[in-house]
Amino acid sequence: MFAKRMDSLTVSDIREILKITANPEVISFAGGLPAPELFPIEEMKQVAITVLDEAGAEAFQYSTTEGFKPLREQIATRMQNKFNVLATYENIQIISGSQQGLDLSGKLFIDEGDVILCESPTYLAAISAFKAYSPRFIAVPTDDNGMIIESLEEIMENTPNIKLIYVIPDFQNPTGRTWSLERRKKFMTVINKYEIPVIEDNPYGELRYEGEMLPALKTFDAKGLVIFFSTFSKIFCPGLRIGWIVADKKFLEKYTLVKQGVDLHTSSISQREISKFIELYDLDANVKKINKVYKRRRDVMLEAMNSEFPKNVKYTYPQGGLFLWVELPSHIKARELLLRCLKDNVAFVPGDSFFPNGGVENTLRLNYSNMSEERIVEGIKRLAKVIKEYE
Amino acid sequence: MFAKRMDSLTVSDIREILKITANPEVISFAGGLPAPELFPIEEMKQVAITVLDEAGAEAFQYSTTEGFKPLREQIATRMQNKFNVLATYENIQIISGSQQGLDLSGKLFIDEGDVILCESPTYLAAISAFKAYSPRFIAVPTDDNGMIIESLEEIMENTPNIKLIYVIPDFQNPTGRTWSLERRKKFMTVINKYEIPVIEDNPYGELRYEGEMLPALKTFDAKGLVIFFSTFSKIFCPGLRIGWIVADKKFLEKYTLVKQGVDLHTSSISQREISKFIELYDLDANVKKINKVYKRRRDVMLEAMNSEFPKNVKYTYPQGGLFLWVELPSHIKARELLLRCLKDNVAFVPGDSFFPNGGVENTLRLNYSNMSEERIVEGIKRLAKVIKEYE
Repeated sequence: MFAKRMDSLTVSDIREILKITANPEVISFAGGLPAPELFPIEEMKQVAITVLDEAGAEAFQYSTTEGFKPLREQIATRMQNKFNVLATYENIQIISGSQQGLDLSGKLFIDEGDVILCESPTYLAAISAFKAYSPRFIAVPTDDNGMIIESLEEIMENTPNIKLIYVIPDFQNPTGRTWSLERRKKFMTVINKYEIPVIEDNPYGELRYEGEMLPALKTFDAKGLVIFFSTFSKIFCPGLRIGWIVADKKFLEKYTLVKQGVDLHTSSISQREISKFIELYDLDANVKKINKVYKRRRDVMLEAMNSEFPKNVKYTYPQGGLFLWVELPSHIKARELLLRCLKDNVAFVPGDSFFPNGGVENTLRLNYSNMSEERIVEGIKRLAKVIKEYE
Repeated sequence: MFAKRMDSLTVSDIREILKITANPEVISFAGGLPAPELFPIEEMKQVAITVLDEAGAEAFQYSTTEGFKPLREQIATRMQNKFNVLATYENIQIISGSQQGLDLSGKLFIDEGDVILCESPTYLAAISAFKAYSPRFIAVPTDDNGMIIESLEEIMENTPNIKLIYVIPDFQNPTGRTWSLERRKKFMTVINKYEIPVIEDNPYGELRYEGEMLPALKTFDAKGLVIFFSTFSKIFCPGLRIGWIVADKKFLEKYTLVKQGVDLHTSSISQREISKFIELYDLDANVKKINKVYKRRRDVMLEAMNSEFPKNVKYTYPQGGLFLWVELPSHIKARELLLRCLKDNVAFVPGDSFFPNGGVENTLRLNYSNMSEERIVEGIKRLAKVIKEYE
C-alpha cells in the first residue's frame, strides 16, 4: 500500500528510547534544543501587537511562496554582514525551518540511486530527509579540520552520478568541529572543477564563542554552485520555523517551484514577526547573550569531562554551536552504554546514527545548550561513572 | 543537474499571466483567497499576549511532530461535532496547511508510474503536489452530483497499480459542486471493496450557506481507508498555515514519520494561538460571519451572471465554498478569453489547468470570496462583454 521509499524510513529506535528522557529526573544531553530562557518573550509580545497594528489582515492572508520581501531584504543584508556572502532579496527563499531545505533539495536534485556525498559523520535529520528520495550516500572521511580533500577528490573522480554534496563547515552537527580556512579553500578548488551543487548548511555559524569567524564556502563559489542554508532557530527561536536558502537564481527559482507544491508558503505572520523584531530590537545583542551562556556551558561540560572521564576517552573542543563529540575506547558500544546510562538517568545520542551507512559504534554526541551548569556537571559525573564500568 | 521529476514541474504560464492581476485596476476572480476583512485581528492580539503570558518560552521552542496536543484534542472534538467523524487526538496530525498533506501523501503512497484517481476536474495544486512523485493520473468523470460511480467502478476493476484516490466532495475546487448523499454512499460501497486509501480533502465543508450538511465520506469508512484533510485557512485565516489530517493510526504514524523528515513540525506558536482562539472566542460565530458574507457575494455574482451572460453559457450553483465553474460554448477557449479579458482588466483561471491530463478548454473558474459586491458586478459585466464578442 505504501511507496517503496517508506521501507527505508523507519521510526528511529533511538527516538523511542529517548522518549523516556521526558522524565525530568533524566539529564538528557541527547537533544539539540536552544536554551528557552533566552527567548525574547516580552519583546515578542510587543512585536505581535505592532505587526497586527501595522499590517492588519495582510499578516493573516496567503502570501507569496518566495517569502515576505522585507524579511528577505533583511536576510540578504545579514548574509553580507555576518557571512560576507553577497546576495539580494532575489537570492533568498524563505523556508519552514532549514529542515525543509533538505527535503526540497532531495526533491530538486535526487533520483533513485543518485549519490549524495556528505561528511562522515553527518547530521542525522539530513540523512532522514534525503532518504525519502532513495539516494546512495557516500560519507567522506573527516578530521579535526573538516572534510579530507584527498578522499573527496578520489571519490569525485571515481564515482558516477554524484548529484549533491552536503556539508556543515561551522560547528558541525554532530561533532562540533569547524573546517579550517585552508580546508575550505581546497574544498572549493575541487568543487569549482565540477558542476555539482553543494549545500552549505549553516545553522550554527553565528554561535561562535571564541576565535575568528572563517569565510563561508559560498564566498569562494566561483560558479554559483553553493546553496547556503540558515535559520532563525538557533539565533532567535525555533518554534516559529523560519529558515532560508541563499542561492543563485538558477537554483532559487526551482526551490520556489518545489516549495509551492509542498506547502504554498511559510507562515505570513511569523515572517512578519521576525522581520519586525529585527527592525525594532537588536538581534545581534540577542546572539551575544546566547553565546555568553553557551560558552559557559561548553566550558563547564569540558571541565567536567576533563576531570571525570577516563583518559582514553577522546572528545572534540567546539569553538561554537551546540554539540560536542565523544570517542570511546573501541570496545565500548554507545548503544549499549546508553541503555546502561538510562538506568542512571543520563542520556545522549549514540554516534552510529550519524553515519549514513552505519558503523562507528564507539562514538556519541552530547548537547550542552539546553541545560543548567549544575545539571551538566551532574550528568557528566553519571556518564563518567558508567563509562568507567566498561574499563 | 536536476532530478527527472523536475521535467514535469514547470512554472504555470497562468501564474505568470495572473501576476498582472496585482494591478488594483484588475478585477481578479482568479485567486482563492478568503476575505481578509473577516479575520479576527483584535482577538488575535489578545490571543498572542495570552499565549506568551501562559506558555512563555515553550511557545517558541521545538515541539513534537504530531502537533500541540490541546489543539489536536480540539480538532478531534470539532471533527465529531461538525463532520460526525469519530476521532481522538491520536488520529490527528497537524500539518503546515492542508497543501502539505498532499505532498506528504505523495511521498507516503506514490512510486513512479503509480495511478492516482481524481475527479475531472480537480484541484490544481493537488495535481502539482502529486506530480513531484511522477504518478499517472486518471480523472474520473463527474456530474452535478459528484463522481460518476459506474465510471469509477470500471476504472478500478481494469486498472492495475491504483495507489490513491483523491476527492473533494464538499463545494469542490474548482467546480463548487457538492456530492449528493446517494453518491457518497455508493462511492464508499465501491471503496470498501478494495484496499486503496482515499483522501477526502475538505477545506470548505463548514462554508455551507444553505441546505443540509451531508455526511463526510469518512462516516461510511468501514475499513479505515479514508484520510480526511482540513484546514483553518478558510474558516479562520490562511497565513498561519495550519491544517490537519484525520486518519486511522496505521496511516497517521506514517504521516508523522514523513513529516518529521520534511519540516520537523509545524509552528509551535501558531498552533498554540489557534488553540487559544478556539478556547477564548467563538470559532463557530466566526464561520457564521464568513458564510453570511460569502453567500451574499455568491448571490451577487450569480445574479450578475444571470442578467449579463449569454444564455449558452452554463455555470454551477455552489451551496457553499469559494468558487463557481463556468462552461462556455465549445468554440471559446478560456485561455484566449483570458488574454482578451486582461485588456479589460478582469481575470479568472482557465479551466483546463484543473484537468490533470489536459483538455476541456471551454471552462473557467471564478472566485467570489475575496471581493466587494460592487466589484463582483462590475467584473462580471466586463467578462460578459468579452464573452459576447465571441458569439
